Amino acid sequence: PNESARQEASRYLDTLTKPMRSLGRLEELAVQLAGITGTLPLDVMRKAIVVMAADHGVCKEGVSAYPSEVTSQMVMNFLNGGAAINVLARQAGADVVCVDMGVNADLQHESLYVRKVKRGTGNIAIGEAMSRDEAIAAIGHGIELAEELAEKGYRLFATGEMGIGNTTPSAAMLAVLAGIEVEQAIGRGTGIDDIAMKRKRDAIERAIAVNRPDAEDPLDVLSKLGGLEIAGLVGVILGAAARGCPIVIDGFIASIAALTAARLAPQSLSYMIPSHVSQERGHRLVLEQLGLEPMMDLKMRLGEGTGAALCFNLVDAAVLIMKEMATFEGAGVSRE
Amino acid sequence: PNESARQEASRYLDTLTKPMRSLGRLEELAVQLAGITGTLPLDVMRKAIVVMAADHGVCKEGVSAYPSEVTSQMVMNFLNGGAAINVLARQAGADVVCVDMGVNADLQHESLYVRKVKRGTGNIAIGEAMSRDEAIAAIGHGIELAEELAEKGYRLFATGEMGIGNTTPSAAMLAVLAGIEVEQAIGRGTGIDDIAMKRKRDAIERAIAVNRPDAEDPLDVLSKLGGLEIAGLVGVILGAAARGCPIVIDGFIASIAALTAARLAPQSLSYMIPSHVSQERGHRLVLEQLGLEPMMDLKMRLGEGTGAALCFNLVDAAVLIMKEMATFEGAGVSRE
Repeated sequence: PNESARQEASRYLDTLTKPMRSLGRLEELAVQLAGITGTLPLDVMRKAIVVMAADHGVCKEGVSAYPSEVTSQMVMNFLNGGAAINVLARQAGADVVCVDMGVNADLQHESLYVRKVKRGTGNIAIGEAMSRDEAIAAIGHGIELAEELAEKGYRLFATGEMGIGNTTPSAAMLAVLAGIEVEQAIGRGTGIDDIAMKRKRDAIERAIAVNRPDAEDPLDVLSKLGGLEIAGLVGVILGAAARGCPIVIDGFIASIAALTAARLAPQSLSYMIPSHVSQERGHRLVLEQLGLEPMMDLKMRLGEGTGAALCFNLVDAAVLIMKEMATFEGAGVSRE
Repeated sequence: PNESARQEASRYLDTLTKPMRSLGRLEELAVQLAGITGTLPLDVMRKAIVVMAADHGVCKEGVSAYPSEVTSQMVMNFLNGGAAINVLARQAGADVVCVDMGVNADLQHESLYVRKVKRGTGNIAIGEAMSRDEAIAAIGHGIELAEELAEKGYRLFATGEMGIGNTTPSAAMLAVLAGIEVEQAIGRGTGIDDIAMKRKRDAIERAIAVNRPDAEDPLDVLSKLGGLEIAGLVGVILGAAARGCPIVIDGFIASIAALTAARLAPQSLSYMIPSHVSQERGHRLVLEQLGLEPMMDLKMRLGEGTGAALCFNLVDAAVLIMKEMATFEGAGVSRE
């Protein structure tokens, strides 16, 4: 981050008609944006929510409340504009960029970005999710996509995902990356009952025992336990950071991608903007691992990028405060 | 609230393409709006942020970091569109309704609503803030204003305030209404140092000792310890509720008005929408007294209605989810 731009933003904020720092996180956001972009953030940014989808072999273990085909059905819903993320993206003035990273179906739509590495991961309860090369390929697609979108003029990104079963690989990755018990890392995902929760815990424990991931090697953890949409989002985050673009992090699964990105390239952390804390139990732990504090607590657990989309309003607010507020001098207000 | 409209909204939300209840607070908001308005909330509401301003005699005790004249200077800033609340209101598509409830200056502007009860309260450290009749008059102005705005087509309200020194009466009211120690109720307001904090605590302790407010009589607490903008906002909240309009509650001072309204008319509580929790120490306690849980934690402490304005985005999101999301059936997505 550009330290002099941060300081300039901070000084400018102190000239505006409000008690110093009284806009809290909005001011921190404005300073962060200045550091990322190297200039005072005075223009609302063009926004893209990258929603990556993939299927998960571990669904065979009965870890989700929904059947796997819902992944591809929901991708079509995204493309037709009817999902929650479409509604919230429209509200935020953002575009949804829907990417097939590894859905177990042949999807075709003029707006779909097809970057399919393979048709779903392997069942992590009995083997690796993907090879190391496949994980690297998925990350590469994400980086290239961020590049491509930045070329098109997008300046603010958000992470979204869809993949029935994907809280299971995310919880497995969290347990290993944070060095915590599986029990602490798992939650109810789309809304599973106690019996499915037991299957989920068992599947993750077997996945860790069978795959023996190296907690010090994020790529090893990602390829053995992760998902293709998670790997793709790691790439999107790294690509956005490399292009000097801020990226808003959504819920549990997106935050696992963020944690992986931060482990691979710690500098990427300063480009991340946390949004909300979800109801999925492990999310708060991931955010703590990242050292990011959520701005909203909306008891959501939908994913798709929905929390990040709502956060765009706060990012815009930070910019508009910088752009439009009067100074003490200009408004004739006494400073003390 | 209309229970059958609430149930209809709840049932409809369960047909939309998302796990049940996975949009958390947004779904709760949609159900609350249905209960308030008696119909499915399918239209984005016209919004007004009522920013009430008044001066405080207790400023003579040195309880604020800013001089009293900043109240009227900031009112002019609101009217000229340069304050934080103007920026955030424009972003939210809301109008700022600026009201002089008791500023210690003769303010004139074509957009200013003048409902001045008197030029600032008395110094609560040595006597009552206002008479009981003055408190009732201020509440009456607030109720009438809500009526007037509802007639003009506004359907969603928010509370804002400006009054140098007004965290002091608010903390005094909180200590009495919640039955807690003054020490727990006070915070740093616009940013006072330890010496001013001691003066603030002393002033409140004297105010309670001198005025002997009756904790069971909200009007007695309001008139002896409160402020004219606080009393006005009590009226706005009651008036909005009476007209069947939801009202978003901002920070510490607005929440004290909400607590007073709820004590006077408990049914008004179901019309209130909490927004954020501020940095001002007593705010969380007031929200607990109200049984309201904040949706955002932005470390803000500005007032003016800024947190409520940011919350409008969430209220709109709840409406748009109802209005625009596809159903499982319509999108051909499997339910389980």
